[in-house]
Amino acid sequence: MHPTTPTPAPDESSAPAPPLRAEGGFPVVGIVGGGQLARMCQPPAVALSLTLSVLAESRTAAAALVVPHSPVGEHTDLEALRVWARHCDVVTFDHEHVPQEVLAALAEDGVELHPAPAALVYAQDKLAMRERLTELGLPCPRWARARTAQEVEAFAAQVGWPIVVKTPRGGYDGKGVQVCRGPAEVAPWLAGVGQAGLSDGLLLEEAVEFTRELSIMVGRSPSGQAAAWPVVETVQEDGINTEVLAPAPGLDPALATSLTQGALRIAGELGVTGVMAVEAFEVRDPQTGATTYLVNELAMRPHNSGHWTIDGSVTSQFEQHLRAVLDLPLGDPSARDPWTASANVLGGDYPGLYGTYRHLMARDPGLKIHLYGKGVRPGRKLGHVTVFGGDGSAESLEELRGRARHAADYLQGVVTE
Amino acid sequence: MHPTTPTPAPDESSAPAPPLRAEGGFPVVGIVGGGQLARMCQPPAVALSLTLSVLAESRTAAAALVVPHSPVGEHTDLEALRVWARHCDVVTFDHEHVPQEVLAALAEDGVELHPAPAALVYAQDKLAMRERLTELGLPCPRWARARTAQEVEAFAAQVGWPIVVKTPRGGYDGKGVQVCRGPAEVAPWLAGVGQAGLSDGLLLEEAVEFTRELSIMVGRSPSGQAAAWPVVETVQEDGINTEVLAPAPGLDPALATSLTQGALRIAGELGVTGVMAVEAFEVRDPQTGATTYLVNELAMRPHNSGHWTIDGSVTSQFEQHLRAVLDLPLGDPSARDPWTASANVLGGDYPGLYGTYRHLMARDPGLKIHLYGKGVRPGRKLGHVTVFGGDGSAESLEELRGRARHAADYLQGVVTE
Repeated sequence: MHPTTPTPAPDESSAPAPPLRAEGGFPVVGIVGGGQLARMCQPPAVALSLTLSVLAESRTAAAALVVPHSPVGEHTDLEALRVWARHCDVVTFDHEHVPQEVLAALAEDGVELHPAPAALVYAQDKLAMRERLTELGLPCPRWARARTAQEVEAFAAQVGWPIVVKTPRGGYDGKGVQVCRGPAEVAPWLAGVGQAGLSDGLLLEEAVEFTRELSIMVGRSPSGQAAAWPVVETVQEDGINTEVLAPAPGLDPALATSLTQGALRIAGELGVTGVMAVEAFEVRDPQTGATTYLVNELAMRPHNSGHWTIDGSVTSQFEQHLRAVLDLPLGDPSARDPWTASANVLGGDYPGLYGTYRHLMARDPGLKIHLYGKGVRPGRKLGHVTVFGGDGSAESLEELRGRARHAADYLQGVVTE
Repeated sequence: MHPTTPTPAPDESSAPAPPLRAEGGFPVVGIVGGGQLARMCQPPAVALSLTLSVLAESRTAAAALVVPHSPVGEHTDLEALRVWARHCDVVTFDHEHVPQEVLAALAEDGVELHPAPAALVYAQDKLAMRERLTELGLPCPRWARARTAQEVEAFAAQVGWPIVVKTPRGGYDGKGVQVCRGPAEVAPWLAGVGQAGLSDGLLLEEAVEFTRELSIMVGRSPSGQAAAWPVVETVQEDGINTEVLAPAPGLDPALATSLTQGALRIAGELGVTGVMAVEAFEVRDPQTGATTYLVNELAMRPHNSGHWTIDGSVTSQFEQHLRAVLDLPLGDPSARDPWTASANVLGGDYPGLYGTYRHLMARDPGLKIHLYGKGVRPGRKLGHVTVFGGDGSAESLEELRGRARHAADYLQGVVTE
């Protein structure tokens, strides 16, 4: 191996150069944030001859390693965003952390943002999301806003302990969420109310007794065309998604339909552009046994629960996101195989990821390995592995799931053969 | 659209910087030549977290637009290759035009070349290829080397006019090949004998009466593992491949087996590393009606007849090429659908390629469009379109083929709706 001496980044010069684009009128899609979601937009951009420009956290960010035009800049730095956005025909996002006031200033400049700030706010602020979805009559867990112990007690009296306490802003992968069994556990959260991220108070939700977690992704264009992928089952450990099964096995067709219609309605009512994930709880009626859903979270960008689409669907979530933000007609979201199983690779103790390839690839020539170019840190999402096929039977799904799970475990050093 | 002012390329500085690579021991794969074949290696490199470094013809070469580390240099410039190759763990090729003496000097330096010069020569020199395959007893058209009119007459007396005249080196896409009906048409070629590219004389071949053209691609690693994709039918117009049908419809299983075995034997005997295409003629015995093959050409790199594998196979030829040159275990080359049809997009009169997307994508959400970032020039290969599915019937293949053909025609302005 050779040393990896830094290359001088073009953006560090006084006048940042625009990206090189292909002849033929192809646009530049700007992405704020250089994480794996921006990175995974590069393959479909290559195929469609679209140019990406990524405003990256660092020169070694996941996306910056694979996208030639990746100037370094902070997503909170309005001036950096302004200078960079001049080179972009549309601007979209790797994450939801760009402040509304910054988004508003860019929109004021005439920058075409997808999703627009007015839609994105519902993915940034869980209180705003709960209020809006409740207005729309979409099924949510019972919830309340709380600033005081009295408000917490009143909600708990209504739904019973434990309750779920969430920070309305900035939470992800289980962070900013806690199941509290009593007032004492909520007290430290109340202490933070009024401070950064908690200016509007806490979001309280009932602790839903769900049978499993589901997710559905949809793509929607500014023209209003929308397309939905099949509903998937997501498996979480410590609030982090570890597996995705597509389609969700044994899902009641009526629930699949109502969740799909609900997601398409949310996309339309909120004016979402690009792709959106709706994470939901599957709940079973103890009397009738019928299953329904409650909306858990919204994400207005490509999402972990859609990584299976890269190998498992006619049109991946990343291609669809690019098509949607450019207001191009959407692609076919159909699954290509009876089953697709995807397992996330989380950072473990073993840093030498490349060293695992020889064994994994020899053991299973059908694996589709996706790594994000990120250094190994415990619990960090480093990649995912997808396996597709099967005959539609539960047994064939378990076989695929086992192969994906093994590969992910081997990559993170949990298993050694 | 914004202007595309050039970005200063790192390689133009005195000490070229190495590519940035991901943590975890991931290698750098160097590719000589920045055409579409190098470009289409980027998506699987992104997935596997491999770093590409492309020695490109220009900063706007097809691959240079999508690969961050793409220094500009000539493939005939030994010093440029030496400086660049220091940053690469292995070096492979977008084309077969690097001179043997340059390859020998790089090998002397210890640069790991795939394929090795001793194998690549059989893809560079058609006379060497004919001699070697004949030694190996592999079926070829009758052929001869000719430097004089007498040698031409002798060969024509043996196989009859017309004969096919080829330059042993540097021909591609129908260039460097002519069907000659008599001595007068060969005379201008003989006049060139002794000059560049014709130092060894002309290659003469019988004009084979073939029923259709076939191609088979195989991947082979330095360790000797090999894998073959299904045999495909290729359709040529004016010597340029315009369509690929996978698998070749109605192919005699015995012919499929013998051609596959022949290709794997060629890869092994010639010591090919990476992927190789064997283009062949399907010939029918007028008496028995049985079909056999004759080897037409070899290409030791990803090949147009394998572009269908990007969307149509579990492992694409580009991923397999990367795995093979890194001596990683090879991926599953199985087809994912009963049929995959691919049509090439050639440069026409219409320069505004992006402007075609709205209509094409609305008309057919199942299209997989691949454009190479190249400017429109008449006859230039700009991209390809792939469609997959079907039920195995001839009718379903025709439907897929028609969709791919229409999209390619619309992109090149041959049809307007």
